[in-house]
Amino acid sequence: MGIRRITRRRAIALAGVGAAGVAGAAGGVGAMAYAQTHDREDGAATGAVPFHGANQAGIVTPAQDRLHFVAFDVLTRDRDRLVEMLRQWTAAAARMTAGRDAGTIGAVNGIPEAPPDDTGEALGLPPSGLTITVGFGPTLFRDASGRDRFGLAARRPAALAELPRFAGDALRPEISGGDLCVQACANDPQVAVHAIRNLARIGMGVVSVRWSQLGFGRTSSTSRDQATPRNLFGFKDGTANLKAEDTDLLRDHLWVLPGDGPDWMTGGSYLVTRKIRMTVETWDRSSLAEQEAVVGRTKGAGAPLGRTAEFDEPDFAATGDDGQPVIPVDSHVRLAHPDTNGGARLLRRGYNFVDGSDGLGRLDAGLFFMAYQRDPRRQFVPIQTRLSRNDAMNEYLRHVSSAIFACPPGVRDAADFFGAALFR
Amino acid sequence: MGIRRITRRRAIALAGVGAAGVAGAAGGVGAMAYAQTHDREDGAATGAVPFHGANQAGIVTPAQDRLHFVAFDVLTRDRDRLVEMLRQWTAAAARMTAGRDAGTIGAVNGIPEAPPDDTGEALGLPPSGLTITVGFGPTLFRDASGRDRFGLAARRPAALAELPRFAGDALRPEISGGDLCVQACANDPQVAVHAIRNLARIGMGVVSVRWSQLGFGRTSSTSRDQATPRNLFGFKDGTANLKAEDTDLLRDHLWVLPGDGPDWMTGGSYLVTRKIRMTVETWDRSSLAEQEAVVGRTKGAGAPLGRTAEFDEPDFAATGDDGQPVIPVDSHVRLAHPDTNGGARLLRRGYNFVDGSDGLGRLDAGLFFMAYQRDPRRQFVPIQTRLSRNDAMNEYLRHVSSAIFACPPGVRDAADFFGAALFR
Repeated sequence: MGIRRITRRRAIALAGVGAAGVAGAAGGVGAMAYAQTHDREDGAATGAVPFHGANQAGIVTPAQDRLHFVAFDVLTRDRDRLVEMLRQWTAAAARMTAGRDAGTIGAVNGIPEAPPDDTGEALGLPPSGLTITVGFGPTLFRDASGRDRFGLAARRPAALAELPRFAGDALRPEISGGDLCVQACANDPQVAVHAIRNLARIGMGVVSVRWSQLGFGRTSSTSRDQATPRNLFGFKDGTANLKAEDTDLLRDHLWVLPGDGPDWMTGGSYLVTRKIRMTVETWDRSSLAEQEAVVGRTKGAGAPLGRTAEFDEPDFAATGDDGQPVIPVDSHVRLAHPDTNGGARLLRRGYNFVDGSDGLGRLDAGLFFMAYQRDPRRQFVPIQTRLSRNDAMNEYLRHVSSAIFACPPGVRDAADFFGAALFR
Repeated sequence: MGIRRITRRRAIALAGVGAAGVAGAAGGVGAMAYAQTHDREDGAATGAVPFHGANQAGIVTPAQDRLHFVAFDVLTRDRDRLVEMLRQWTAAAARMTAGRDAGTIGAVNGIPEAPPDDTGEALGLPPSGLTITVGFGPTLFRDASGRDRFGLAARRPAALAELPRFAGDALRPEISGGDLCVQACANDPQVAVHAIRNLARIGMGVVSVRWSQLGFGRTSSTSRDQATPRNLFGFKDGTANLKAEDTDLLRDHLWVLPGDGPDWMTGGSYLVTRKIRMTVETWDRSSLAEQEAVVGRTKGAGAPLGRTAEFDEPDFAATGDDGQPVIPVDSHVRLAHPDTNGGARLLRRGYNFVDGSDGLGRLDAGLFFMAYQRDPRRQFVPIQTRLSRNDAMNEYLRHVSSAIFACPPGVRDAADFFGAALFR
């Protein structure tokens, strides 16, 4: 029986027998360094998303239902250790996205006292559409004191600039920024958590978790095959999102092209994350008419005000009997629309979150906003500048976390690794 | 077309048309007080769990995948307002568990300025196995200063006593206790969150959220039809759990019987919750042999040490070649086993959680333990006393939140409400 033919379920059974026998003899753990491949299942929810490719998975991949996102501080000053960890992350990511473990559960290299190379909580679970997407923050290139940490300062893309302060920002530094990020998306939250945890385990001593965020429900569609989900205001969100099928728009707005900046980012994309607390209790006390005026869409169908269906184009020129615009001038849909922003668009990939309560009798709930783009200076920054000044929705929002990352192109094959061209 | 025949999808479309038309005319929201019944779907994951019955749903119901749990402080001093809210909660719970909204999305009683009676984020989602289970904490009967708040003090069951302090407890008062609790379990987290949020909205001014907890993965099976899931130590958890099929054991260990205490709790059950932080980073650095010795089971199959299969009975008398017990005396499985606890058993219904990170480079992760039982004084308290003193697993655990609630019997019909017999 070739080791690659062992299915995950079969491997578990073997592990049980091996460990029980060994423990019963109070001896070593034995040579259980089995590899695990998975019983592939059909269906988008449980299947595997290919890991290797020209672009990283997890960007135009149809948005999975669950998220675990983490930002890391890099602890080491040793560039070689950092690169070695990125190589290890890449190998583990290739395994985990295929539904295999991060490493072996049993003894490592025959040493029974070694910890397992996988934490085990995803044993028996299918790949669940897991994607692992890695990005580099501005502080990886040059820290707050201006130090060039890994000889990378000259290679920082101009587009990877710290975001400006926006009106109303209430950012908490301890859950903002980060030298590295990993976005794990899957249709089973246990699979996403398992992926992040194992990368953190592999990075022990090299990186340290700075902040992390779980998201329980996607708030955007990234494919025309997906229904538009609802955010915690109860409205459909991301109707006008960039989608995987919009090939021309993706070229213009999503992927970094040759000449945009340093070559190592060609085929990559910039990620902006914002944790946006929504004061849902206040929102829930406002009338339906007020809610719809703030959003600029109907709550039921998600149609632009004055139209009837979700994907109808908003008519910003239309006025009502009272002469006022049907879609208010300070409504979210108007201010965020490409027509108001010189055509700028984002590929949004956010998730709803509830992080317990806030000690003041309210749920700590909102949107973990994530948006991919070709150049934040021409996309997120001007859009958010406009929204932060004028959006009627701001009354119900508070931005508490912010970060920006350069997500390099895809890992092309087994010899490649996350960000290889940056460190070459 | 009878209003009960409107499916949820159809109702959304109607809502869209109504709201758009009205908003376009800048007038009132109109009479959109539509009722919503749901396109029932087959399959345990998306279907509805019956709400009415002799016992509350969400206890022996096969454990759903996701949890939103909330503890409330009662703000009002007015018993009638509290009772009225419990009636409103009951009506909303009956609707939501059937896949309908908590109330109407459109204008309430024709008043366009009224907020919607449902927050909307579950529009279009199936019932998803939602259960809503309500409990009463000791402080509802008598507050910390000894005041009989609602004339209920004489009706407090002796079994509903504050838990003693256990060895190693590191409880945070602000996320412990509570006058009321609601457990919402569903196979879609958005459905569970929607349920809790709408009950909080309905209770505005009467109750206030004290603490709340999301759980992303069930850690116990409550039915023999369910596979045993894994906790964040990577081990199968709850193998020896009480299960719905164990009718005799449930009578002895789960449901309150006549004569156990005040009649209003007959058919109810006591819930103990404990938020248990797991220091997974430390755990992940320990060897497989150490991990299996701590748990007393193999990591792969979940078999008791010295045996081969998960459901094999542990042999606590067996010794190895070295004369030592195969299942260590301080292992979790030995100390938690009914044989060590005079036959005491629990129906566990816990969930894994990850609440971001702890600011010290670690994930804030662990188990939100929930256990239902007939009398905590003879079940949870002695078991946890033993575990807290001797369990080898304590090195990797910290109990940070604790609560106890009396969950009354089921709501029998449309005239009944949560805890009616208590307030009669």
